Amino acid sequence: MPHKKYPSVLFRDRIKSIKDEVGELFDIILEYNRKAILLLEDFDKGIADDIIEKSKEVDVLGYELERKCIKFIAVEQPLASDLMFIESTIRIISHAKRISYLSANIAESSELIQDVDIPDKLLYDLQYMADYVQIMLTKGSRTYSNQDLKMAKELGYEDNKVDDLFDSILDQTTNLLAKKTENTLGIIHLIFIARSLERIADRVVSIGTRTIFIKTNHRPDIETIKEDIE
Amino acid sequence: MPHKKYPSVLFRDRIKSIKDEVGELFDIILEYNRKAILLLEDFDKGIADDIIEKSKEVDVLGYELERKCIKFIAVEQPLASDLMFIESTIRIISHAKRISYLSANIAESSELIQDVDIPDKLLYDLQYMADYVQIMLTKGSRTYSNQDLKMAKELGYEDNKVDDLFDSILDQTTNLLAKKTENTLGIIHLIFIARSLERIADRVVSIGTRTIFIKTNHRPDIETIKEDIE
Repeated sequence: MPHKKYPSVLFRDRIKSIKDEVGELFDIILEYNRKAILLLEDFDKGIADDIIEKSKEVDVLGYELERKCIKFIAVEQPLASDLMFIESTIRIISHAKRISYLSANIAESSELIQDVDIPDKLLYDLQYMADYVQIMLTKGSRTYSNQDLKMAKELGYEDNKVDDLFDSILDQTTNLLAKKTENTLGIIHLIFIARSLERIADRVVSIGTRTIFIKTNHRPDIETIKEDIE
Repeated sequence: MPHKKYPSVLFRDRIKSIKDEVGELFDIILEYNRKAILLLEDFDKGIADDIIEKSKEVDVLGYELERKCIKFIAVEQPLASDLMFIESTIRIISHAKRISYLSANIAESSELIQDVDIPDKLLYDLQYMADYVQIMLTKGSRTYSNQDLKMAKELGYEDNKVDDLFDSILDQTTNLLAKKTENTLGIIHLIFIARSLERIADRVVSIGTRTIFIKTNHRPDIETIKEDIE
Protein backbone atom coordinates (compact mmCIF):
# COMPACT_ATOMS: atom_id res chain seq x y z
CA MET A 1 0.00 0.00 0.00
CA PRO A 2 1.88 3.08 -1.22
CA HIS A 3 0.27 5.48 1.25
CA LYS A 4 1.87 3.64 4.16
CA LYS A 5 5.06 5.41 3.09
CA TYR A 6 3.60 8.84 3.89
CA PRO A 7 0.65 7.99 6.08
CA SER A 8 -0.03 11.35 7.67
CA VAL A 9 -0.21 13.36 4.46
CA LEU A 10 -2.49 10.99 2.58
CA PHE A 11 -4.51 10.25 5.66
CA ARG A 12 -5.16 13.98 6.17
CA ASP A 13 -5.98 14.37 2.49
CA ARG A 14 -8.60 11.69 2.75
CA ILE A 15 -10.22 13.18 5.80
CA LYS A 16 -10.23 16.55 4.07
CA SER A 17 -11.80 15.05 0.98
CA ILE A 18 -14.62 13.54 3.06
CA LYS A 19 -15.16 16.86 4.80
CA ASP A 20 -15.28 18.68 1.46
CA GLU A 21 -17.80 16.25 0.08
CA VAL A 22 -20.04 16.75 3.10
CA GLY A 23 -19.75 20.50 2.50
CA GLU A 24 -20.86 20.05 -1.10
CA LEU A 25 -23.78 17.93 0.05
CA PHE A 26 -24.83 20.69 2.42
CA ASP A 27 -24.62 23.29 -0.34
CA ILE A 28 -27.12 21.28 -2.37
CA ILE A 29 -29.38 20.80 0.65
CA LEU A 30 -29.35 24.50 1.46
CA GLU A 31 -30.11 25.50 -2.11
CA TYR A 32 -33.04 23.12 -2.39
CA ASN A 33 -34.40 23.98 1.02
CA ARG A 34 -34.47 27.62 -0.09
CA LYS A 35 -36.28 26.60 -3.28
CA ALA A 36 -38.83 24.64 -1.24
CA ILE A 37 -39.51 27.60 1.03
CA LEU A 38 -40.08 29.89 -1.94
CA LEU A 39 -42.85 27.56 -3.07
CA LEU A 40 -44.94 28.47 -0.02
CA GLU A 41 -45.93 31.79 -1.54
CA ASP A 42 -45.36 31.10 -5.19
CA PHE A 43 -45.97 27.50 -6.19
CA ASP A 44 -44.39 26.06 -9.33
CA LYS A 45 -44.97 22.41 -10.17
CA GLY A 46 -41.73 22.10 -12.15
CA ILE A 47 -39.62 23.39 -9.27
CA ALA A 48 -41.46 21.14 -6.81
CA ASP A 49 -40.72 18.08 -8.95
CA ASP A 50 -37.11 19.19 -9.24
CA ILE A 51 -36.81 19.41 -5.42
CA ILE A 52 -38.32 15.96 -4.96
CA GLU A 53 -36.00 14.51 -7.60
CA LYS A 54 -32.98 16.19 -6.00
CA SER A 55 -33.81 14.75 -2.58
CA LYS A 56 -33.55 11.28 -4.10
CA GLU A 57 -30.15 12.19 -5.54
CA VAL A 58 -29.05 13.51 -2.14
CA ASP A 59 -30.13 10.22 -0.62
CA VAL A 60 -27.87 8.31 -3.00
CA LEU A 61 -24.99 10.77 -2.61
CA GLY A 62 -25.28 10.66 1.17
CA TYR A 63 -25.46 6.92 1.11
CA GLU A 64 -22.26 6.65 -0.93
CA LEU A 65 -20.52 9.11 1.34
CA GLU A 66 -21.49 7.08 4.42
CA ARG A 67 -20.02 3.99 2.77
CA LYS A 68 -16.84 5.91 2.04
CA CYS A 69 -16.55 6.84 5.73
CA ILE A 70 -17.08 3.27 6.87
CA LYS A 71 -14.52 1.98 4.39
CA PHE A 72 -12.13 4.67 5.56
CA ILE A 73 -12.48 3.41 9.13
CA ALA A 74 -11.95 -0.20 8.06
CA VAL A 75 -8.90 0.55 5.93
CA GLU A 76 -7.20 3.37 7.81
CA GLN A 77 -8.08 2.40 11.39
CA PRO A 78 -8.16 5.98 12.59
CA LEU A 79 -7.66 6.53 16.31
CA ALA A 80 -9.30 8.72 18.94
CA SER A 81 -10.23 12.12 17.56
CA ASP A 82 -10.04 11.05 13.90
CA LEU A 83 -12.27 8.07 14.52
CA MET A 84 -14.67 10.30 16.35
CA PHE A 85 -14.66 12.82 13.52
CA ILE A 86 -15.51 10.17 10.94
CA GLU A 87 -18.13 8.61 13.20
CA SER A 88 -19.75 11.99 13.66
CA THR A 89 -19.57 12.61 9.93
CA ILE A 90 -21.57 9.45 9.32
CA ARG A 91 -24.26 10.71 11.66
CA ILE A 92 -24.23 14.19 10.16
CA ILE A 93 -24.70 12.77 6.66
CA SER A 94 -27.74 10.94 7.96
CA HIS A 95 -29.15 14.27 9.21
CA ALA A 96 -28.35 15.89 5.87
CA LYS A 97 -30.30 13.22 3.99
CA ARG A 98 -33.26 13.69 6.29
CA ILE A 99 -33.23 17.48 5.89
CA SER A 100 -33.30 17.05 2.14
CA TYR A 101 -36.22 14.66 2.45
CA LEU A 102 -38.09 17.11 4.69
CA SER A 103 -37.55 19.86 2.09
CA ALA A 104 -39.15 17.55 -0.46
CA ASN A 105 -42.09 17.13 1.95
CA ILE A 106 -42.46 20.91 2.08
CA ALA A 107 -42.44 21.08 -1.71
CA GLU A 108 -45.14 18.41 -1.91
CA SER A 109 -47.36 20.03 0.71
CA SER A 110 -46.91 23.47 -0.88
CA GLU A 111 -49.02 22.36 -3.81
CA LEU A 112 -51.92 21.55 -1.50
CA ILE A 113 -51.97 24.86 0.34
CA GLN A 114 -52.35 26.99 -2.77
CA ASP A 115 -56.11 27.31 -2.49
CA VAL A 116 -56.07 28.05 1.22
CA ASP A 117 -56.89 31.62 2.11
CA ILE A 118 -54.11 31.92 4.71
CA PRO A 119 -54.54 34.73 7.27
CA ASP A 120 -51.73 37.31 7.13
CA LYS A 121 -50.42 36.58 10.61
CA LEU A 122 -50.24 32.86 9.92
CA LEU A 123 -48.45 33.33 6.63
CA TYR A 124 -46.10 35.79 8.26
CA ASP A 125 -45.24 33.35 11.07
CA LEU A 126 -44.73 30.50 8.65
CA GLN A 127 -42.41 32.60 6.53
CA TYR A 128 -40.58 33.78 9.63
CA MET A 129 -40.15 30.20 10.79
CA ALA A 130 -38.88 29.20 7.34
CA ASP A 131 -36.36 32.05 7.31
CA TYR A 132 -35.19 31.07 10.76
CA VAL A 133 -34.68 27.48 9.66
CA GLN A 134 -32.70 28.70 6.65
CA ILE A 135 -30.37 30.67 8.90
CA MET A 136 -29.97 27.68 11.23
CA LEU A 137 -29.22 25.44 8.27
CA THR A 138 -26.46 27.75 7.03
CA LYS A 139 -25.05 27.85 10.54
CA GLY A 140 -25.28 24.08 10.93
CA SER A 141 -23.26 23.59 7.78
CA ARG A 142 -20.57 26.02 8.98
CA THR A 143 -20.63 24.51 12.46
CA TYR A 144 -19.51 21.22 10.96
CA SER A 145 -17.07 22.56 8.37
CA ASN A 146 -15.36 24.96 10.81
CA GLN A 147 -15.90 22.79 13.90
CA ASP A 148 -17.31 25.89 15.52
CA LEU A 149 -18.31 25.15 19.12
CA LYS A 150 -19.81 28.57 19.78
CA MET A 151 -22.08 28.36 16.76
CA ALA A 152 -23.08 24.84 17.76
CA LYS A 153 -24.30 26.07 21.11
CA GLU A 154 -26.27 28.94 19.57
CA LEU A 155 -28.29 26.46 17.55
CA GLY A 156 -29.95 25.13 20.70
CA TYR A 157 -31.30 28.56 21.59
CA GLU A 158 -32.48 29.26 18.07
CA ASP A 159 -34.32 25.99 18.01
CA ASN A 160 -36.41 27.17 20.97
CA LYS A 161 -37.55 30.08 18.83
CA VAL A 162 -38.54 27.70 16.05
CA ASP A 163 -40.44 25.55 18.57
CA ASP A 164 -42.34 28.62 19.80
CA LEU A 165 -43.25 29.54 16.24
CA PHE A 166 -44.43 26.02 15.62
CA ASP A 167 -46.68 26.12 18.69
CA SER A 168 -48.10 29.44 17.57
CA ILE A 169 -48.74 28.15 14.05
CA LEU A 170 -50.40 25.02 15.44
CA ASP A 171 -52.70 27.24 17.54
CA GLN A 172 -53.57 29.43 14.58
CA THR A 173 -54.24 26.55 12.20
CA THR A 174 -56.35 24.79 14.82
CA ASN A 175 -58.44 27.91 15.22
CA LEU A 176 -58.69 28.20 11.48
CA LEU A 177 -59.90 24.62 11.24
CA ALA A 178 -62.49 25.26 13.91
CA LYS A 179 -63.85 28.16 11.87
CA LYS A 180 -63.49 26.90 8.33
CA THR A 181 -65.30 23.98 6.84
CA GLU A 182 -63.66 24.02 3.45
CA ASN A 183 -60.19 23.07 2.32
CA THR A 184 -59.35 21.42 5.61
CA LEU A 185 -56.82 19.23 3.81
CA GLY A 186 -54.96 22.35 2.69
CA ILE A 187 -54.88 23.64 6.25
CA ILE A 188 -53.61 20.27 7.49
CA HIS A 189 -50.80 20.55 4.97
CA LEU A 190 -49.94 23.94 6.44
CA ILE A 191 -49.42 22.08 9.72
CA PHE A 192 -47.34 19.44 7.96
CA ILE A 193 -45.13 22.16 6.47
CA ALA A 194 -44.61 23.76 9.88
CA ARG A 195 -43.81 20.34 11.30
CA SER A 196 -41.26 19.65 8.57
CA LEU A 197 -39.61 23.00 9.29
CA GLU A 198 -39.51 22.22 13.00
CA ARG A 199 -37.93 18.87 12.28
CA ILE A 200 -35.30 20.38 10.04
CA ALA A 201 -34.40 22.70 12.92
CA ASP A 202 -34.13 19.68 15.23
CA ARG A 203 -31.83 17.98 12.79
CA VAL A 204 -29.62 21.07 12.60
CA VAL A 205 -29.45 21.07 16.40
CA SER A 206 -28.27 17.47 16.21
CA ILE A 207 -25.51 18.54 13.85
CA GLY A 208 -24.48 21.08 16.47
CA THR A 209 -24.62 18.43 19.20
CA ARG A 210 -22.41 16.24 17.11
CA THR A 211 -19.87 19.04 16.67
CA ILE A 212 -19.81 19.60 20.42
CA PHE A 213 -19.21 15.90 20.82
CA ILE A 214 -16.29 15.87 18.39
CA LYS A 215 -14.64 18.83 20.09
CA THR A 216 -15.25 17.94 23.73
CA ASN A 217 -15.47 14.15 23.59
CA HIS A 218 -18.57 14.53 25.68
CA ARG A 219 -22.06 13.76 24.53
CA PRO A 220 -24.36 16.64 25.49
CA ASP A 221 -27.18 15.72 27.84
CA ILE A 222 -30.11 14.24 25.98
CA GLU A 223 -32.48 16.34 28.09
CA THR A 224 -30.94 19.64 27.16
CA ILE A 225 -30.02 19.10 23.55
CA LYS A 226 -32.34 17.36 21.18
CA GLU A 227 -30.22 14.61 19.82
CA ASP A 228 -31.41 12.80 16.76
CA ILE A 229 -34.96 13.99 17.17
CA GLU A 230 -37.02 13.98 14.01
CA MET B 1 -3.79 -8.74 21.15
CA PRO B 2 -4.74 -12.24 22.29
CA HIS B 3 -7.63 -12.68 19.89
CA LYS B 4 -5.25 -12.59 16.93
CA LYS B 5 -4.35 -16.15 17.92
CA TYR B 6 -7.85 -17.39 17.15
CA PRO B 7 -9.26 -14.60 15.10
CA SER B 8 -12.18 -16.39 13.52
CA VAL B 9 -13.73 -17.65 16.76
CA LEU B 10 -13.56 -14.39 18.68
CA PHE B 11 -14.41 -12.37 15.60
CA ARG B 12 -17.59 -14.45 15.13
CA ASP B 13 -18.39 -14.15 18.82
CA ARG B 14 -18.22 -10.41 18.59
CA ILE B 15 -20.44 -10.21 15.56
CA LYS B 16 -22.91 -12.50 17.28
CA SER B 17 -22.83 -10.36 20.39
CA ILE B 18 -23.67 -7.25 18.36
CA LYS B 19 -26.48 -9.10 16.63
CA ASP B 20 -27.86 -10.28 19.98
CA GLU B 21 -27.78 -6.77 21.40
CA VAL B 22 -29.69 -5.45 18.39
CA GLY B 23 -32.22 -8.24 19.01
CA GLU B 24 -32.62 -7.13 22.62
CA LEU B 25 -33.06 -3.53 21.50
CA PHE B 26 -35.83 -4.62 19.15
CA ASP B 27 -37.55 -6.56 21.92
CA ILE B 28 -37.75 -3.37 23.97
CA ILE B 29 -38.98 -1.36 20.99
CA LEU B 30 -41.67 -3.89 20.19
CA GLU B 31 -42.89 -4.04 23.76
CA TYR B 32 -43.12 -0.28 24.08
CA ASN B 33 -44.71 0.16 20.70
CA ARG B 34 -47.41 -2.27 21.83
CA LYS B 35 -47.88 -0.26 25.02
CA ALA B 36 -48.18 2.96 23.02
CA ILE B 37 -50.83 1.46 20.77
CA LEU B 38 -52.88 0.29 23.76
CA LEU B 39 -53.03 3.92 24.92
CA LEU B 40 -55.14 4.85 21.90
CA GLU B 41 -58.24 3.31 23.42
CA ASP B 42 -57.32 3.35 27.08
CA PHE B 43 -55.07 6.22 28.06
CA ASP B 44 -52.91 6.02 31.18
CA LYS B 45 -50.60 8.91 32.03
CA GLY B 46 -48.14 6.73 33.96
CA ILE B 47 -47.71 4.34 31.05
CA ALA B 48 -47.36 7.23 28.60
CA ASP B 49 -44.56 8.75 30.71
CA ASP B 50 -42.90 5.35 30.96
CA ILE B 51 -42.92 4.99 27.15
CA ILE B 52 -41.42 8.45 26.69
CA GLU B 53 -38.73 7.71 29.30
CA LYS B 54 -37.94 4.38 27.66
CA SER B 55 -37.50 5.99 24.24
CA LYS B 56 -34.74 8.13 25.75
CA GLU B 57 -33.09 5.02 27.14
CA VAL B 58 -33.36 3.34 23.74
CA ASP B 59 -31.69 6.38 22.22
CA VAL B 60 -28.71 6.01 24.56
CA LEU B 61 -28.59 2.21 24.14
CA GLY B 62 -28.73 2.54 20.37
CA TYR B 63 -26.11 5.21 20.41
CA GLU B 64 -23.71 3.03 22.43
CA LEU B 65 -24.38 0.10 20.13
CA GLU B 66 -23.58 2.20 17.06
CA ARG B 67 -20.30 3.20 18.70
CA LYS B 68 -19.55 -0.43 19.38
CA CYS B 69 -20.08 -1.26 15.70
CA ILE B 70 -17.81 1.55 14.54
CA LYS B 71 -15.11 0.53 16.99
CA PHE B 72 -15.48 -3.04 15.80
CA ILE B 73 -14.83 -1.90 12.24
CA ALA B 74 -11.80 0.15 13.31
CA VAL B 75 -10.26 -2.62 15.40
CA GLU B 76 -11.19 -5.77 13.49
CA GLN B 77 -11.13 -4.43 9.94
CA PRO B 78 -13.81 -6.81 8.74
CA LEU B 79 -13.92 -7.53 5.04
CA ALA B 80 -16.65 -7.76 2.42
CA SER B 81 -19.77 -9.41 3.81
CA ASP B 82 -18.84 -8.86 7.47
CA LEU B 83 -18.15 -5.20 6.87
CA MET B 84 -21.44 -4.93 5.08
CA PHE B 85 -23.25 -6.67 7.91
CA ILE B 86 -21.87 -4.27 10.50
CA GLU B 87 -22.51 -1.27 8.26
CA SER B 88 -26.11 -2.38 7.84
CA THR B 89 -26.40 -2.95 11.56
CA ILE B 90 -25.43 0.67 12.18
CA ARG B 91 -28.20 1.80 9.87
CA ILE B 92 -30.71 -0.59 11.39
CA ILE B 93 -29.96 0.70 14.89
CA SER B 94 -30.69 4.17 13.62
CA HIS B 95 -34.10 2.96 12.40
CA ALA B 96 -34.72 1.25 15.73
CA LYS B 97 -34.05 4.48 17.63
CA ARG B 98 -36.43 6.35 15.38
CA ILE B 99 -39.18 3.76 15.78
CA SER B 100 -38.87 4.07 19.53
CA TYR B 101 -39.11 7.85 19.25
CA LEU B 102 -42.20 7.57 17.05
CA SER B 103 -43.83 5.29 19.65
CA ALA B 104 -43.19 8.01 22.22
CA ASN B 105 -44.90 10.47 19.84
CA ILE B 106 -47.92 8.18 19.74
CA ALA B 107 -48.00 8.02 23.53
CA GLU B 108 -47.89 11.82 23.75
CA SER B 109 -50.61 12.35 21.18
CA SER B 110 -52.80 9.70 22.77
CA GLU B 111 -53.41 11.97 25.73
CA LEU B 112 -54.77 14.66 23.45
CA ILE B 113 -57.27 12.46 21.62
CA GLN B 114 -59.06 11.26 24.76
CA ASP B 115 -61.86 13.81 24.50
CA VAL B 116 -62.41 13.32 20.80
CA ASP B 117 -65.59 11.49 19.91
CA ILE B 118 -63.96 9.27 17.31
CA PRO B 119 -66.34 7.70 14.77
CA ASP B 120 -66.33 3.89 14.86
CA LYS B 121 -64.96 3.45 11.36
CA LEU B 122 -62.08 5.85 12.05
CA LEU B 123 -61.17 4.17 15.33
CA TYR B 124 -61.40 0.78 13.66
CA ASP B 125 -59.07 1.83 10.83
CA LEU B 126 -56.60 3.39 13.24
CA GLN B 127 -56.54 0.23 15.34
CA TYR B 128 -56.20 -1.89 12.21
CA MET B 129 -53.30 0.25 11.04
CA ALA B 130 -51.67 -0.04 14.46
CA ASP B 131 -52.03 -3.83 14.49
CA TYR B 132 -50.58 -4.00 11.01
CA VAL B 133 -47.59 -1.94 12.07
CA GLN B 134 -47.09 -4.24 15.06
CA ILE B 135 -46.99 -7.27 12.79
CA MET B 136 -44.55 -5.52 10.45
CA LEU B 137 -42.35 -4.58 13.39
CA THR B 138 -42.17 -8.18 14.60
CA LYS B 139 -41.34 -9.26 11.07
CA GLY B 140 -38.75 -6.53 10.68
CA SER B 141 -36.95 -7.70 13.79
CA ARG B 142 -36.93 -11.32 12.55
CA THR B 143 -35.89 -10.22 9.08
CA TYR B 144 -32.72 -8.82 10.57
CA SER B 145 -32.01 -11.55 13.11
CA ASN B 146 -32.64 -14.40 10.66
CA GLN B 147 -31.45 -12.50 7.58
CA ASP B 148 -34.69 -13.56 5.97
CA LEU B 149 -34.86 -12.31 2.38
CA LYS B 150 -38.40 -13.53 1.74
CA MET B 151 -39.76 -11.74 4.78
CA ALA B 152 -37.87 -8.59 3.80
CA LYS B 153 -39.65 -8.54 0.47
CA GLU B 154 -43.07 -9.04 2.03
CA LEU B 155 -42.61 -5.89 4.09
CA GLY B 156 -42.77 -3.74 0.96
CA TYR B 157 -46.21 -5.07 0.11
CA GLU B 158 -47.49 -4.71 3.65
CA ASP B 159 -46.33 -1.13 3.71
CA ASN B 160 -48.64 -0.38 0.79
CA LYS B 161 -51.54 -1.55 2.95
CA VAL B 162 -50.43 0.79 5.73
CA ASP B 163 -50.18 3.66 3.25
CA ASP B 164 -53.73 2.98 2.05
CA LEU B 165 -54.99 2.99 5.62
CA PHE B 166 -53.20 6.26 6.26
CA ASP B 167 -54.82 7.86 3.21
CA SER B 168 -58.23 6.65 4.35
CA ILE B 169 -57.67 7.97 7.88
CA LEU B 170 -56.50 11.31 6.51
CA ASP B 171 -59.72 11.51 4.45
CA GLN B 172 -61.89 10.64 7.43
CA THR B 173 -60.20 13.08 9.80
CA THR B 174 -60.35 15.83 7.21
CA ASN B 175 -64.10 15.26 6.86
CA LEU B 176 -64.43 15.22 10.60
CA LEU B 177 -62.61 18.53 10.85
CA ALA B 178 -64.87 20.03 8.21
CA LYS B 179 -67.92 19.04 10.26
CA LYS B 180 -66.72 19.61 13.81
CA THR B 181 -65.74 22.90 15.30
CA GLU B 182 -64.60 21.64 18.67
CA ASN B 183 -61.53 19.72 19.77
CA THR B 184 -59.78 20.26 16.44
CA LEU B 185 -56.44 19.86 18.21
CA GLY B 186 -57.46 16.38 19.31
CA ILE B 187 -58.41 15.48 15.75
CA ILE B 188 -55.09 16.83 14.48
CA HIS B 189 -53.35 14.56 16.97
CA LEU B 190 -55.28 11.65 15.50
CA ILE B 191 -53.61 12.55 12.22
CA PHE B 192 -50.23 12.80 13.93
CA ILE B 193 -50.72 9.32 15.40
CA ALA B 194 -51.59 7.88 11.99
CA ARG B 195 -48.55 9.61 10.54
CA SER B 196 -46.28 8.19 13.23
CA LEU B 197 -47.62 4.72 12.50
CA GLU B 198 -47.05 5.20 8.79
CA ARG B 199 -43.49 6.29 9.49
CA ILE B 200 -42.78 3.32 11.69
CA ALA B 201 -43.92 1.12 8.81
CA ASP B 202 -41.56 2.99 6.46
CA ARG B 203 -38.70 2.42 8.88
CA VAL B 204 -39.48 -1.28 9.03
CA VAL B 205 -39.40 -1.38 5.24
CA SER B 206 -35.95 0.21 5.43
CA ILE B 207 -34.83 -2.57 7.75
CA GLY B 208 -36.02 -5.02 5.11
CA THR B 209 -34.20 -3.11 2.38
CA ARG B 210 -31.07 -3.26 4.44
CA THR B 211 -31.41 -7.03 4.84
CA ILE B 212 -31.82 -7.42 1.09
CA PHE B 213 -28.69 -5.35 0.68
CA ILE B 214 -26.67 -7.51 3.08
CA LYS B 215 -27.75 -10.70 1.35
CA THR B 216 -27.55 -9.64 -2.27
CA ASN B 217 -24.90 -6.91 -2.15
CA HIS B 218 -27.29 -4.87 -4.21
CA ARG B 219 -29.09 -1.80 -3.00
CA PRO B 220 -32.76 -2.07 -3.95
CA ASP B 221 -34.04 0.62 -6.26
CA ILE B 222 -34.94 3.75 -4.35
CA GLU B 223 -38.09 4.07 -6.43
CA THR B 224 -39.45 0.70 -5.51
CA ILE B 225 -38.37 0.35 -1.89
CA LYS B 226 -38.63 3.28 0.45
CA GLU B 227 -35.17 3.58 1.84
CA ASP B 228 -34.66 5.68 4.92
CA ILE B 229 -37.98 7.41 4.59
CA GLU B 230 -39.32 8.87 7.78
